[in-house]
Amino acid sequence: MLPQTVKLVEVGPRDGLQNEPGTVPTATKVALIDRLGAAGLTVIEAGSFVSPKWVPQMADTAAVLAAIQRRPGVSYPVLVPNMKGLEAALAATGVEEIAVFGAASESFSQRNTNCSIDDGLARFADVTAAAREKGLRVRGYVSCVLGCPYEGRIAPEAVARVAGALVDMGCYEISLGDTIGAGTPLAAQAMVEAVAERVPRERLAAHFHDTYGQALANILAVMERGVAVVDCSVAGLGGCPYAKGASGNVATEDVLYMLDGMGIATGVDMSALLDASAMISQALGRSPASRVARAMGCAAA
Amino acid sequence: MLPQTVKLVEVGPRDGLQNEPGTVPTATKVALIDRLGAAGLTVIEAGSFVSPKWVPQMADTAAVLAAIQRRPGVSYPVLVPNMKGLEAALAATGVEEIAVFGAASESFSQRNTNCSIDDGLARFADVTAAAREKGLRVRGYVSCVLGCPYEGRIAPEAVARVAGALVDMGCYEISLGDTIGAGTPLAAQAMVEAVAERVPRERLAAHFHDTYGQALANILAVMERGVAVVDCSVAGLGGCPYAKGASGNVATEDVLYMLDGMGIATGVDMSALLDASAMISQALGRSPASRVARAMGCAAA
Repeated sequence: MLPQTVKLVEVGPRDGLQNEPGTVPTATKVALIDRLGAAGLTVIEAGSFVSPKWVPQMADTAAVLAAIQRRPGVSYPVLVPNMKGLEAALAATGVEEIAVFGAASESFSQRNTNCSIDDGLARFADVTAAAREKGLRVRGYVSCVLGCPYEGRIAPEAVARVAGALVDMGCYEISLGDTIGAGTPLAAQAMVEAVAERVPRERLAAHFHDTYGQALANILAVMERGVAVVDCSVAGLGGCPYAKGASGNVATEDVLYMLDGMGIATGVDMSALLDASAMISQALGRSPASRVARAMGCAAA
Repeated sequence: MLPQTVKLVEVGPRDGLQNEPGTVPTATKVALIDRLGAAGLTVIEAGSFVSPKWVPQMADTAAVLAAIQRRPGVSYPVLVPNMKGLEAALAATGVEEIAVFGAASESFSQRNTNCSIDDGLARFADVTAAAREKGLRVRGYVSCVLGCPYEGRIAPEAVARVAGALVDMGCYEISLGDTIGAGTPLAAQAMVEAVAERVPRERLAAHFHDTYGQALANILAVMERGVAVVDCSVAGLGGCPYAKGASGNVATEDVLYMLDGMGIATGVDMSALLDASAMISQALGRSPASRVARAMGCAAA
């Protein structure tokens, strides 16, 4: 039942760097994205068109898109929160794919986007329709799929409802985000089974955070249930800014190590990926939040 | 097929602290062991009777054993490398269980114990027989079960042979050690299946290191194959001394978080365990190498 191949979706340059306290120079982002492409990643989230008032870290996304070396067969999606963001994305260089998002938690939706789950979905239905009219592919994110900072447990059916709505409006893939990293393997499997009743499992992606160290176990658990797309972040970019070493997105290196060891093909080269990891870690002036990258550094020391 | 209950074997005070660069005061070790007992752990490896020339960190094991508060139903095993160590264990206070060890790798055995696998097993057969005559229980460790620093891959059959020999000489349980943390889930399952042909799987323990972040995924994988005993180390004690943050033994907190989330009973209380973790981390002057402990610290900050 395990997939023979897995598609890795690299979210470090967007989901990772947007959580950095400082602003990363455009040239550094471009170099990172180019190295990730050289390592064999075929989907690299390149930035977002969100108000720079809210996310100043992503204010240079258009400049990044203009400067990267586009590789054939590689997609560089950008996150778009509304129609204004879509217009900016359409005006930028070479955008072929966008991502939209919904939350499985009502409280999280209210506090983070100031609207209900359903109002958010209605807004994204318009964005998605307009994007598809222009020939863009649209990916949907669902957050809080295994827990919410305000509500605690989230019913798998609530995740299935939002995932289904995103697919109905035209999203080709649904990324299931364990935003607070609170999930464990059986909960992750139960959630996937509930969502699979609305969305075919080959269109599901695991987007798991490693806050409590559970991400790889959860990824293994959902791969056993047919999930074959995994979101991850080079060097574990996107950690909790309040504690050194606390981690956010699962590190691409750690996922790749597991998949390589299991004989599951990804097309990604570990050595080139570690180059990208070392480069961005050096630029940020800190150790990578990847156990593989640290262990390799340890071995080299 | 997943177990409903899992026995956690806490190895931090021995396998963890013996890898610390400095010597930990006896009183600190005693306080740690007492807190671990208070948290509900029923097996706490308390030290070893190895030559203090080789492992000065464990030179005070007899003093530790004399000072801990013994709880009914809790076992405090000690590692014993030879007949001289067994004599010291028998002379110490209240030793009811010892642990012996073998390697699944010939090169590792030669380099670390200066004898072949078979010569080492013969020596331990004598130690085990003498220990059982005195009414002690004997646990067997096998190292390098998923890889060797000198030989790389290790055949599952080599692990099965050593595990079988340890059971034949009277070990009641076999702890399968991924000494270098190189294992991944399918390899771990294949190794357990091979060993299970020689040793009933209810007598197997997973002793996995988290060097490459794979330990929890590997533990999940072998629990799916019937393993219901997991070795772990509070605060992830036992990390690689050459790199900050590189980790050795999987952290007890991280294992417990997964098992709690899966509804698998252990009898261990997370909050009391985090007290023990905070206490030893403070004594060592560093952050715990446990993602759960760090995330909880992050939330508290």
